[in-house]
Amino acid sequence: MTFLEIFENIKKKKSFLCIGLDSDIEKIPSDLLKFEDPIFEFNKQIIDATHDLVIAYKPNTAFYEASGAKGWETLHKTAEYIKLNFPDIFLIADAKRGDIGNTSKMYAKAFFETMPFDAITVAPYMGNDSVLPFLDFKNKFVILLSLTSNSGADDFQFIKNSRNSNFLYEDVIETSKNWGNNENLMYVVGATKAKRIEEIRKIIPDNFLLIPGVGAQGGCLSEVIEYGMNKYCGLIVNSSREIIYASNGKDFAIKAREKAKKMQIEMKKYLSEIK
Amino acid sequence: MTFLEIFENIKKKKSFLCIGLDSDIEKIPSDLLKFEDPIFEFNKQIIDATHDLVIAYKPNTAFYEASGAKGWETLHKTAEYIKLNFPDIFLIADAKRGDIGNTSKMYAKAFFETMPFDAITVAPYMGNDSVLPFLDFKNKFVILLSLTSNSGADDFQFIKNSRNSNFLYEDVIETSKNWGNNENLMYVVGATKAKRIEEIRKIIPDNFLLIPGVGAQGGCLSEVIEYGMNKYCGLIVNSSREIIYASNGKDFAIKAREKAKKMQIEMKKYLSEIK
Repeated sequence: MTFLEIFENIKKKKSFLCIGLDSDIEKIPSDLLKFEDPIFEFNKQIIDATHDLVIAYKPNTAFYEASGAKGWETLHKTAEYIKLNFPDIFLIADAKRGDIGNTSKMYAKAFFETMPFDAITVAPYMGNDSVLPFLDFKNKFVILLSLTSNSGADDFQFIKNSRNSNFLYEDVIETSKNWGNNENLMYVVGATKAKRIEEIRKIIPDNFLLIPGVGAQGGCLSEVIEYGMNKYCGLIVNSSREIIYASNGKDFAIKAREKAKKMQIEMKKYLSEIK
Repeated sequence: MTFLEIFENIKKKKSFLCIGLDSDIEKIPSDLLKFEDPIFEFNKQIIDATHDLVIAYKPNTAFYEASGAKGWETLHKTAEYIKLNFPDIFLIADAKRGDIGNTSKMYAKAFFETMPFDAITVAPYMGNDSVLPFLDFKNKFVILLSLTSNSGADDFQFIKNSRNSNFLYEDVIETSKNWGNNENLMYVVGATKAKRIEEIRKIIPDNFLLIPGVGAQGGCLSEVIEYGMNKYCGLIVNSSREIIYASNGKDFAIKAREKAKKMQIEMKKYLSEIK
């Protein structure tokens, strides 16, 4: 998928919402346990109920790995279900991978060839050769962690570089922006740190930002938009738990749609200014 | 597995060698392709030929994920084969995981409960809540990336903190050492940066270091030992490609044993001083 296809889809759907499929066997409605693959059934019903309101889904690999090979089968089936039925969806593997070059190459193969993901989240700690193998894939995206939404982000991401007074997360963005471009590189910036986005936009005015942390983690959508939106929208806002676990009864998909719809309506307001 | 069990095993086997199972379908002997699960067969033969010379194996998850769910089945089978037949082996998942707390908890479940790994490599970028859920597991270890062996390590790991003049990798060690102790926390330090180990030992005199980069990546074993060995040995030195791909003929397991034996004999010399 290309940068422009994502942008066109945002305009068409009047949404920049991503739903995070952090699908946990202990949290899904017990009614689904009768299915052979309860998590796939859960995902399928969430997807069927929300696909017209979102531009992206983001399965979180940890929740699938917890069930071993069977979980990977579910992850793979979910990815294929989305791509087969809703090919305009931008499909993100929230995998936080990153290793030496020959190993990152295998991770890229896993997510971009074996499975049909369009993008993968990557951790920056190991530097350029841990990221470049993913960028070699045409029409695929790396979404690099820069400023994350969790409390532990403060431990290292705000270390100030003695050479240029940048915070570490700013150095990550400044250094890595030369490894790729808008067409293959996005950044994770937590909604809980929305005010920082204004500074980040000075470094990368055009790259898409994937914004987790709206909802359960406490981030505010209007602030994210105020500081982060650009002429291509430039934002993909993720919500996971608040949507997929809106209800744990039989109406879970209906309630998930209601939550997603509410966010999409708010997004639509802001998108009216974008041509 | 406990710190002391690892130490006792090092003394018993006169080795602190770990073999990295970066097992790639395109590199294993073609003779193995007739098996239903060629990678498992490859791993099994390598393990059977070397288990008395090593204290640890380290499957690299990327090489299994590249084959999707089937690859995860191979990873799981390999882990179980090792733990069932050679329970004194310290089993490391080289997975470089790390995410917000509720997600790291699922990764910990995947590797410590669903599969029988003793340790997992974790990336530090997201800070304390991305690491703590792994440390909650008794007799399991986090092996935190600090100074990695790859060229990209220079991009961020040597950023100097304006507050304390530490390099980032030193801050990672100093901050994280308070999250755990010798009994649940080790560090990845690349053999290609051996001279830095002297300084690292001042911060963490007792924790085990997992040292990749000896062999194919160019690191030198005697330097690693000079700077890193402590009274508990304190080192687990990994070699992957140089051992497992010593030959790609029918004699691959014999050749792998020869390479491992050569390293073990060198290690034995240095261990003679440890009581």
